[in-house]
Amino acid sequence: MIKAGIIGSTGYAGGELARLLLQRDDVEIVWYGSRSYVDQKYASIYQNMFRFVEDSCLDDNIEALAEEADVIFTATPQGFLASLLNDTILSKTKVIDLSADYRIKDVAVYEEWYKMVHKTPQYIKEAVYGLPEQNRESIKKARLIANPGCYPTCSILSIYPLLKEGLVEHDSIIIDAKSGTSGAGRGAKVDNLYCEVNENIKAYGVGVHRHTPEIEEQLSYGAGKPVTISFTPHLVPMNRGILITAYGTLKKGISEEQVRAAYENYYENERFVRVLEGDVTPQTKWVEGSNFVDVNFKMDKRTNRVVMMGAMDNLVKGAAGQAVQNMNLLFGLPEEKGLKLIPMFP
Amino acid sequence: MIKAGIIGSTGYAGGELARLLLQRDDVEIVWYGSRSYVDQKYASIYQNMFRFVEDSCLDDNIEALAEEADVIFTATPQGFLASLLNDTILSKTKVIDLSADYRIKDVAVYEEWYKMVHKTPQYIKEAVYGLPEQNRESIKKARLIANPGCYPTCSILSIYPLLKEGLVEHDSIIIDAKSGTSGAGRGAKVDNLYCEVNENIKAYGVGVHRHTPEIEEQLSYGAGKPVTISFTPHLVPMNRGILITAYGTLKKGISEEQVRAAYENYYENERFVRVLEGDVTPQTKWVEGSNFVDVNFKMDKRTNRVVMMGAMDNLVKGAAGQAVQNMNLLFGLPEEKGLKLIPMFP
Amino acid sequence: MIKAGIIGSTGYAGGELARLLLQRDDVEIVWYGSRSYVDQKYASIYQNMFRFVEDSCLDDNIEALAEEADVIFTATPQGFLASLLNDTILSKTKVIDLSADYRIKDVAVYEEWYKMVHKTPQYIKEAVYGLPEQNRESIKKARLIANPGCYPTCSILSIYPLLKEGLVEHDSIIIDAKSGTSGAGRGAKVDNLYCEVNENIKAYGVGVHRHTPEIEEQLSYGAGKPVTISFTPHLVPMNRGILITAYGTLKKGISEEQVRAAYENYYENERFVRVLEGDVTPQTKWVEGSNFVDVNFKMDKRTNRVVMMGAMDNLVKGAAGQAVQNMNLLFGLPEEKGLKLIPMFP
Amino acid sequence: MIKAGIIGSTGYAGGELARLLLQRDDVEIVWYGSRSYVDQKYASIYQNMFRFVEDSCLDDNIEALAEEADVIFTATPQGFLASLLNDTILSKTKVIDLSADYRIKDVAVYEEWYKMVHKTPQYIKEAVYGLPEQNRESIKKARLIANPGCYPTCSILSIYPLLKEGLVEHDSIIIDAKSGTSGAGRGAKVDNLYCEVNENIKAYGVGVHRHTPEIEEQLSYGAGKPVTISFTPHLVPMNRGILITAYGTLKKGISEEQVRAAYENYYENERFVRVLEGDVTPQTKWVEGSNFVDVNFKMDKRTNRVVMMGAMDNLVKGAAGQAVQNMNLLFGLPEEKGLKLIPMFP
Repeated sequence: MIKAGIIGSTGYAGGELARLLLQRDDVEIVWYGSRSYVDQKYASIYQNMFRFVEDSCLDDNIEALAEEADVIFTATPQGFLASLLNDTILSKTKVIDLSADYRIKDVAVYEEWYKMVHKTPQYIKEAVYGLPEQNRESIKKARLIANPGCYPTCSILSIYPLLKEGLVEHDSIIIDAKSGTSGAGRGAKVDNLYCEVNENIKAYGVGVHRHTPEIEEQLSYGAGKPVTISFTPHLVPMNRGILITAYGTLKKGISEEQVRAAYENYYENERFVRVLEGDVTPQTKWVEGSNFVDVNFKMDKRTNRVVMMGAMDNLVKGAAGQAVQNMNLLFGLPEEKGLKLIPMFP
Repeated sequence: MIKAGIIGSTGYAGGELARLLLQRDDVEIVWYGSRSYVDQKYASIYQNMFRFVEDSCLDDNIEALAEEADVIFTATPQGFLASLLNDTILSKTKVIDLSADYRIKDVAVYEEWYKMVHKTPQYIKEAVYGLPEQNRESIKKARLIANPGCYPTCSILSIYPLLKEGLVEHDSIIIDAKSGTSGAGRGAKVDNLYCEVNENIKAYGVGVHRHTPEIEEQLSYGAGKPVTISFTPHLVPMNRGILITAYGTLKKGISEEQVRAAYENYYENERFVRVLEGDVTPQTKWVEGSNFVDVNFKMDKRTNRVVMMGAMDNLVKGAAGQAVQNMNLLFGLPEEKGLKLIPMFP
Repeated sequence: MIKAGIIGSTGYAGGELARLLLQRDDVEIVWYGSRSYVDQKYASIYQNMFRFVEDSCLDDNIEALAEEADVIFTATPQGFLASLLNDTILSKTKVIDLSADYRIKDVAVYEEWYKMVHKTPQYIKEAVYGLPEQNRESIKKARLIANPGCYPTCSILSIYPLLKEGLVEHDSIIIDAKSGTSGAGRGAKVDNLYCEVNENIKAYGVGVHRHTPEIEEQLSYGAGKPVTISFTPHLVPMNRGILITAYGTLKKGISEEQVRAAYENYYENERFVRVLEGDVTPQTKWVEGSNFVDVNFKMDKRTNRVVMMGAMDNLVKGAAGQAVQNMNLLFGLPEEKGLKLIPMFP
Repeated sequence: MIKAGIIGSTGYAGGELARLLLQRDDVEIVWYGSRSYVDQKYASIYQNMFRFVEDSCLDDNIEALAEEADVIFTATPQGFLASLLNDTILSKTKVIDLSADYRIKDVAVYEEWYKMVHKTPQYIKEAVYGLPEQNRESIKKARLIANPGCYPTCSILSIYPLLKEGLVEHDSIIIDAKSGTSGAGRGAKVDNLYCEVNENIKAYGVGVHRHTPEIEEQLSYGAGKPVTISFTPHLVPMNRGILITAYGTLKKGISEEQVRAAYENYYENERFVRVLEGDVTPQTKWVEGSNFVDVNFKMDKRTNRVVMMGAMDNLVKGAAGQAVQNMNLLFGLPEEKGLKLIPMFP
């Protein structure tokens, strides 16, 4: 029985993590951490889990938790884990961090985009970027996993093969991203009220969204040289789902067959990436509630560009599901354990 | 391995049934029946199941299917199964009918409300009304299950205990029901277009909805005398979910404790009915994607009425999930097999 | 030119009021009051009005405003106006109060349901309940208008004629109400976040909603004796709209023709109440953005009940539109001035 | 009194046109044309207009209508008007065509993208592209107006000034467009059912959408040379609204001030284009129900690109509102007559 603790368990990602773990018989959640709901029944905050959890929330005390847990998930604001992590914790437990604190290798880049000083940069090098499709073997041996961001997961998986195979110009990548509102969190803000989001779509954080350097770093590994992208996220009136529509200029003479082959070779053994057939475009509804990323592409000969598309559930593969996938790898379990979820439709 | 066939597999209830059965390792779907999509890949109609099904649709040939299947699910229009059922089929396989053909014991009532002649009334008596919370033992021994309607399931489970215990006047029941749009089916009708349903709520079928006599029959068993109800369904802009708000006049001197005790006694051993605590009102979102019905009530001393409330996912406990629950009972399996689903939130 | 001021202009009702008044050439808004946004450009809070307003928000100083304005609209929390109103204000300007402070004639009832002490009960008697369909002539002569609540407006207009004509039993009225989320206001609360409301429906305030005594008082005038009702509001995932489904027991021998005649006689000269034809049920979408209430009914002979239905835009006829209608009456203008709005569809 | 007829009055654009014209006192609608609803009361198809229209639908007989009407609006499928237009019609009445039949000057391009033979190419040259912001003077004198498509209107107004002023590379334009579902029409198709669209976002028609050449033609006029674009439309779960997010590579040394000046100079006298201030991004909700296009931009120095954004109501400025704007110009009326609509929020 794996003992797991969740710091920041009352946000949407934390809630999804609890939901996924509670359906397993090989994991026990020993700690529901929270800043705002200490001593309240967890099932009164997430009434969907009524009858599944009797526990009340504890505070976000990661040191105490490290004594009890085999693995700690931190679904906390930026800078929280970085301000607390230490050798004692890492010597006692594994940590899967759903925040961005250890995702970016260059601390200066982190500090510039996140507008904060990194308190424990000494752990950045050790942290493994938890995208199993890229770093499966390193993840298995890690103590500290930097669980990828939602936009980065979907963007990287949609674009990486074409950059890696040298099919698109590395300086031509434009990512137009659309996200459901759960990505904005459960904080009480006017901008996220039902009436403000419903019947509305808008771009936000244009040119300055913090996921930009995370995507760039990973794509740079693929391209073998620095990649700079345009990244524009949009807020869409739906609860879950991210759709990536990315544009890249094809290198000379690249054929549709080459592009398809790149995707298929890259993902043929991947359980959680589905390369769609023919002209079928990814839809967020087709992956809702599952750990899948659906990808496909369309050649545009008129402009010599390729449109790369990916759809994903931001709370599952974009957060909690991927964290569970990483936990499975860390503990030597089958990677798809607890994640064999067929998307829900409609 | 249970061999299952689905007639009418391309509607929303059929799709949900496929989704639930494909996640099990003790059931094999041997037939995806369809009128409209014969020879098309099932996963091209329900792209969420891409990689889970390779099969194409077959026609809705129930006789041929009876040769192959241990159990047949019919998610078909009213009158379809009634026009085809015969002894041969029932001698070879079990049938779980998600239509209304065998739900109502009085064929005259059926014919009046459904405006059609019942072709095989001889099977009505044998058919067991597949509400496990009422008829668990009969279901286990049945050949033909009449899987309850969505509104009836939620209504009956919300009201029955109080009628059975004689706490409310049997002629005072008013049911105001609200349903998500998947209940209207996947047929291409202008009324169900996104733009017609979104940002809209309306009552429909006021006083004439076909689920009325089904609810009345079951409530009459509880009351021990004929129950006539007012039933008003509404269409709500959401995909899934049914909410029942029912009103009943309390008999003299009935206390809140008696009402709560009735619910708790009745459901204390029921896996899929959750009696909520205190003043927590059922919400459809808290049961989405699960087989739960959440119920609770509120006393109104000013009017001497009790408000009985229930929430449920119309495609799961209201259709496919309940059918699976019935299948489990028919085959001597644990009732919750394949149905230990925590509701998805948000 | 009528000079108008809005206290509480940054809530949804205040915003709708500004929108309606800005489209008129005979009204000038001289004061955009706000607690939270003082000195901010009003058009930065309601970007839809960009280019229509240059003003910034002022504080909610009703005394200062009374010096400038011919009419003050208060779209403020309960108790706000009651704590400030005085003879000076009423001697200088007319007041249309969108809160509940002066709607209920019996101050004890107000204090019981609103859980607060009424600071200026001396103005209750003078205040006119601003439902023009009932009190047109009194409104014209008033200084202080108690603009009706959203649920009460739709409920009263749907039920009143049948009580007044003695067609239904006065103690049998049950109102099941459904509202869009703008009714919950623009405050930042977790319960009103997009992800909590979307794909969800729930009852709230069961048996204790503050609009109950307001509806009862007005219906009692119609019935000529005290009316006690069951009232259950529900939150629906849409921005605007209220739907009322009300149930009443018919008195002996009442025919469908009598019921229809009651509605038609009562509303034949009313510009803003549309009695729908035949079996057409009211839908909130058919009145969105307009000042209409659509009503209709259905006889249910089986239960000897009548189902009374009404649909309305909660921000227009349920708040700002009705306030404008009252203003027109107060100033001797055509009642429909600025309100000849065809509902928007889809 | 202008006598107007609408051919194709029962689609969403036709319905919006009726709604806008019925609120005017200088226009009379003499013909509600329809293929599917002949002899049915128009207000039974669009119940929002109950009490505003008594007429029933007539067939789509444009020749008969030309005898009666001063102006004919055709909100019909592609090819319909092209197959019927003749000199007699044009000699008797003005025609505002909301279809694409006369939008594209090069008939070969039209035939290639629309996959049909153009039946009356002789009128293409005469037809004026009805974008008042570009062609105001020509519109005033026209007999035949090609009312622009929804995506083109928003795209052109968002991008044109920068191309015209030579600030962006003409071959770098990528348009990522998002539309509400009313753009898909009122036809009964499974893909447009509520349950298929809700909680979903997808790209469609990638690289092959018919609005592509229309946008390219108009942008080419601005650039002074042929412009080829990438254009990807997406379907968003909302009724109304189009959002354009367009990307262009800045020419060397172009400053933010120059970009802003281009927008402001270009639109300073335009009533229906609002250039937003600072970093405010356009949102579809802020223009809903109005004839506005809100535009703004963001410089991205890292990539040397500019992100151009525009939001619009697809049924108003993207269809019926623009058609009314054109009618006003044709008849020498103030351009904003009947269009001084403040967007509805929320």
